Amino acid sequence: MLSFENDYSEGAHPEILRRLAETNMEQITGYGMDHYCESAKARIREACGCPDAEIWFLVGGTQTNMTVIDTITPPYAGVVAAESGHVNVHEAGAIEATGHKVLTLPQHNGKIDATELRDYIATFYADGNYEHMVFPGSVYVSQCTEYGTIYTKAELETIADVCHEYGIPLFVDGARLGYALTATGNDVTLKDLARIADVFYIGGTKVGALFGEAVVFPHGNAPRHFLTLVKQHGALLAKGWLLGLQFDTLFTDDLYTRIARNANEAADRIRTALREKGYRFAFEAPTNQIFIVLDQPTIDRLSAHVRLGFMEKYDDEHSVMRICTSWATTPEHVDELIALL
Amino acid sequence: MLSFENDYSEGAHPEILRRLAETNMEQITGYGMDHYCESAKARIREACGCPDAEIWFLVGGTQTNMTVIDTITPPYAGVVAAESGHVNVHEAGAIEATGHKVLTLPQHNGKIDATELRDYIATFYADGNYEHMVFPGSVYVSQCTEYGTIYTKAELETIADVCHEYGIPLFVDGARLGYALTATGNDVTLKDLARIADVFYIGGTKVGALFGEAVVFPHGNAPRHFLTLVKQHGALLAKGWLLGLQFDTLFTDDLYTRIARNANEAADRIRTALREKGYRFAFEAPTNQIFIVLDQPTIDRLSAHVRLGFMEKYDDEHSVMRICTSWATTPEHVDELIALL
Amino acid sequence: MLSFENDYSEGAHPEILRRLAETNMEQITGYGMDHYCESAKARIREACGCPDAEIWFLVGGTQTNMTVIDTITPPYAGVVAAESGHVNVHEAGAIEATGHKVLTLPQHNGKIDATELRDYIATFYADGNYEHMVFPGSVYVSQCTEYGTIYTKAELETIADVCHEYGIPLFVDGARLGYALTATGNDVTLKDLARIADVFYIGGTKVGALFGEAVVFPHGNAPRHFLTLVKQHGALLAKGWLLGLQFDTLFTDDLYTRIARNANEAADRIRTALREKGYRFAFEAPTNQIFIVLDQPTIDRLSAHVRLGFMEKYDDEHSVMRICTSWATTPEHVDELIALL
Amino acid sequence: MLSFENDYSEGAHPEILRRLAETNMEQITGYGMDHYCESAKARIREACGCPDAEIWFLVGGTQTNMTVIDTITPPYAGVVAAESGHVNVHEAGAIEATGHKVLTLPQHNGKIDATELRDYIATFYADGNYEHMVFPGSVYVSQCTEYGTIYTKAELETIADVCHEYGIPLFVDGARLGYALTATGNDVTLKDLARIADVFYIGGTKVGALFGEAVVFPHGNAPRHFLTLVKQHGALLAKGWLLGLQFDTLFTDDLYTRIARNANEAADRIRTALREKGYRFAFEAPTNQIFIVLDQPTIDRLSAHVRLGFMEKYDDEHSVMRICTSWATTPEHVDELIALL
Repeated sequence: MLSFENDYSEGAHPEILRRLAETNMEQITGYGMDHYCESAKARIREACGCPDAEIWFLVGGTQTNMTVIDTITPPYAGVVAAESGHVNVHEAGAIEATGHKVLTLPQHNGKIDATELRDYIATFYADGNYEHMVFPGSVYVSQCTEYGTIYTKAELETIADVCHEYGIPLFVDGARLGYALTATGNDVTLKDLARIADVFYIGGTKVGALFGEAVVFPHGNAPRHFLTLVKQHGALLAKGWLLGLQFDTLFTDDLYTRIARNANEAADRIRTALREKGYRFAFEAPTNQIFIVLDQPTIDRLSAHVRLGFMEKYDDEHSVMRICTSWATTPEHVDELIALL
Repeated sequence: MLSFENDYSEGAHPEILRRLAETNMEQITGYGMDHYCESAKARIREACGCPDAEIWFLVGGTQTNMTVIDTITPPYAGVVAAESGHVNVHEAGAIEATGHKVLTLPQHNGKIDATELRDYIATFYADGNYEHMVFPGSVYVSQCTEYGTIYTKAELETIADVCHEYGIPLFVDGARLGYALTATGNDVTLKDLARIADVFYIGGTKVGALFGEAVVFPHGNAPRHFLTLVKQHGALLAKGWLLGLQFDTLFTDDLYTRIARNANEAADRIRTALREKGYRFAFEAPTNQIFIVLDQPTIDRLSAHVRLGFMEKYDDEHSVMRICTSWATTPEHVDELIALL
Repeated sequence: MLSFENDYSEGAHPEILRRLAETNMEQITGYGMDHYCESAKARIREACGCPDAEIWFLVGGTQTNMTVIDTITPPYAGVVAAESGHVNVHEAGAIEATGHKVLTLPQHNGKIDATELRDYIATFYADGNYEHMVFPGSVYVSQCTEYGTIYTKAELETIADVCHEYGIPLFVDGARLGYALTATGNDVTLKDLARIADVFYIGGTKVGALFGEAVVFPHGNAPRHFLTLVKQHGALLAKGWLLGLQFDTLFTDDLYTRIARNANEAADRIRTALREKGYRFAFEAPTNQIFIVLDQPTIDRLSAHVRLGFMEKYDDEHSVMRICTSWATTPEHVDELIALL
Repeated sequence: MLSFENDYSEGAHPEILRRLAETNMEQITGYGMDHYCESAKARIREACGCPDAEIWFLVGGTQTNMTVIDTITPPYAGVVAAESGHVNVHEAGAIEATGHKVLTLPQHNGKIDATELRDYIATFYADGNYEHMVFPGSVYVSQCTEYGTIYTKAELETIADVCHEYGIPLFVDGARLGYALTATGNDVTLKDLARIADVFYIGGTKVGALFGEAVVFPHGNAPRHFLTLVKQHGALLAKGWLLGLQFDTLFTDDLYTRIARNANEAADRIRTALREKGYRFAFEAPTNQIFIVLDQPTIDRLSAHVRLGFMEKYDDEHSVMRICTSWATTPEHVDELIALL
């Protein structure tokens, strides 16, 4: 059956599989101490314009979020995130399991607002009892967000300014970073992100890799003994080169950008069709996730032919459904879907 | 200076000090294994109408909340609380430090609503992704609440019904329980509470003791090896009899109730005076905490003579201030305050 | 350069790569809810003779150990392990990071002794202060051990008897289980293990897979909501079918056993050669790890041609070095090594 | 019945009770922000010769150990302690519950050896795999130790030198510090300790207070936002002045030293009597704890008249028993005991 359920339904870009096969019987040092990881890191440093960046390859998103947040957030502090942030909603309490509270701000199409962030922190420090409360100790945003929206460069810069005014690191979850970087209207490059954020990751799982997230500390600012901390969080892959090899491939000849753009182009075509056919959008988002409000008969009709994602009830008769394209979406899949709409 | 700042500004009821002095040089077994603790437990079991109750004496409120919540909430779950709940706001992240998320519901004058609780839990289990989320694993309410309000018996019973429908324990924070039990209009007795809640505590620190909270598992339902768990949370007092002796005193001749009622009577007199003088109440509450909206000049004028608690900014010109009576408040203090108003 | 450094230096058995390539563009449901995982579980249940087994696929060893130990060990308890156990030495404190102490027993060629285990537990409960101490709450053994040795069936059964006498689950770390199952002299089958242990895992990372460990709760005895707990530990792979597919392959036509046996046969040939040439063994072990005592000149000579593992200083002039074969070791590699010795 | 079971069997020195009674109805600010705490801190700073010392009052020993160790030990590290250290044996896993491993060294009459400590750390860093292991991140010693022995100044200095060579803080558990400071043969003053240790505490619970431990960071080197961290660990007493008042009393007119010396003098008399009567000492210790090897008939005979502490089985017929004096021991108690021996 046709599926637009999510962006991690297929394996990996064929070029990645090719290189895995090609190097399969090489004997390689473990735990990321190999030359494929070195090569991948060099390419990412280059792409980020950060010669001093410290880069680590982890396996999955929740794992990366918990490891990074736990290690950059002081013990007396929590992480500030949108109430809709993945770390607040869909990580089974992994952040709290490391001992840190998630401090929520309202979401606006999935994004936090720099002014609300500043108010939140200023109000915190103005409270006579703040020493009895959880300090804001790091800030988490997703680019693109869980709703497919993206921050503008100005928005990210303002958020970073607020963070740095209070000595708080800004962490950008880039599980779908490729789809943000290549979205129509996006003005945030990888180099911008590396300049603005204190730490971010480049998602592989959802953008062409079998699995893998590349954590970037742009200014050589990784927490001390980060490898040990990664291991302690159960996040150190024995055959680390599998991650290096994948990111090396993704950052060769701009593959990461090219395949991410494919998803957005597919989504753009679908959006145009939806608009022409009068579908209602739950909110505007320029990346590979499309959220539309459907009535139950339409859902039933479509479900017979294509798998969509369910997001939430909209009202008694409607639901918000997600159409998700990916690096693997083909023009034929898009044609089929549009024909069904 | 006169102070109505809080209800933990004085030491202990004189009768408690008298017994501490009287027994001071007795050689007593440590860690709560003494006859004073046994006697106190027997009196509390009697007062609760729970012959099978398991009772433990801890030192302070945050410590008690973290120990109880951590040990009654499954590892895959969090604790549901009002967004204004002490565990969510003023415990420095102690709950999250034990690995559990605080799942918040809206507060209505400091209380959660049973219907909203049921909706929250039902929505949780209706979500196709609930296994990726934090389960509601226990419910926390305060009686009286952080805003001085109280749950009715019917409200508590309905909340308990929701909890038990889903197999979730209900935990009642009774840091100010005495002031709830003796409030005008209250219809929840200690026996009711022991019947309705799965675990609750009887606050001593704010009601006549130097320190101490009596945790009651009414149905012999304490977590296994609870003493070890208390110790592991740093909450086991070496000279445990100091706690037993205090609660034994408080539960002799109804002392706990009598001194708690004193606070409410004082508060009732102050409320009447405030009403007559046209002060604005932030919200109605029948216990020992009174929240009023004052303009800055009034605050400045009063502050010269009496210490009040600051709660929060109301608007640019006004603040919500707290007047707090206690077991130790004298009629003379009340007269003085009323004269100042 | 020739390498006998460890058993995770190569990618995966070619048949696994073939199936990954073959299924690469299929659209598959995430988080292990797919038919490849179902098929793999069915094959493992069959191989274990446990129709009720609950099976989960995790990514790596430390991750698996921390997730399993944290979820089977009561909160007032620790895990008992050999002082040489991987969880005690080489997991960067991952177990303690989940809040549990590792309680150590002496190791005898890497193994714990059932009598010492019983003494340890009996002594614990005989101590008048045991409620102030960390309870023995689970037992961890490795099969084969970190020293390449194996437990006999009788040894495992006796350890399990002690555990069950005290209501303690027995957890068997099978990171190298294949090499134990196929060792000369081994008398513990997979079915035996599934009958004796309360939970164990079948290691893939070191036995033919790119990565992956199959956790088996033989009697349908997985902790409640284990998927959520796996997620909370950052251990839930988005593309779970990558694990299912690998184990499905490994448990088709006995591949797992066949490739594990290859490693042992290679090791047996090397052991024979070492013995003939008069090398000194650090201890006797029948599996794919060989520990020998070498003087520095020999180490230097060999290091020019082959990578060995360093284990520890033996004395001022000697070190214990490890020769490690694997599923990927070829007869030609063995020939080369023997020629060098 | 006569009791020499432990040093926390009585309440508090009468002068403390007197001051508690005297100040009982004063209205005092909570959480240690009061003038009694300020006064006590000033006296302790003076006694330590550390004008910059940061001082915090916590309630109990385990609580203090877990709070201090968790906050001074890096997240990738554990605390090094004697295998007999209280934190390793008798704190119900409180240290591990904060996420840190206890790394053990052999004990020599309850003490660790500086050379063994240096070897341990040097060996750690020499291990090629140390990044996969738990770093030594703080060192814990008890003065006096759990066996009543004391470190000499030279011993402490050498241990501190090793610590500082590796950038590791030295933490001294002073639950019984008074009994060490006043022991015959002791050459470590409070000023010495404050110069040598990075953090230590002055035990009140066992030396004259109802409860309370004064944590001293001699060089203004408390972890950032330590009050919040104390609160987060459930260790912040609401009526903090109860602690301040007790330590203010103990550090007025040298009361702490005087009452501690009383315990040692009593113990010295008992030791002399034991020696004269030919009792066998389990080991030599100059403080208020005396460990003797008794046969069962003697234990039975004594137990009819006096409560002693049981330490451990010595052999099938003998046990090690503890005689413990305290600030509260009277000459008459000692006479009675000697008569019984």
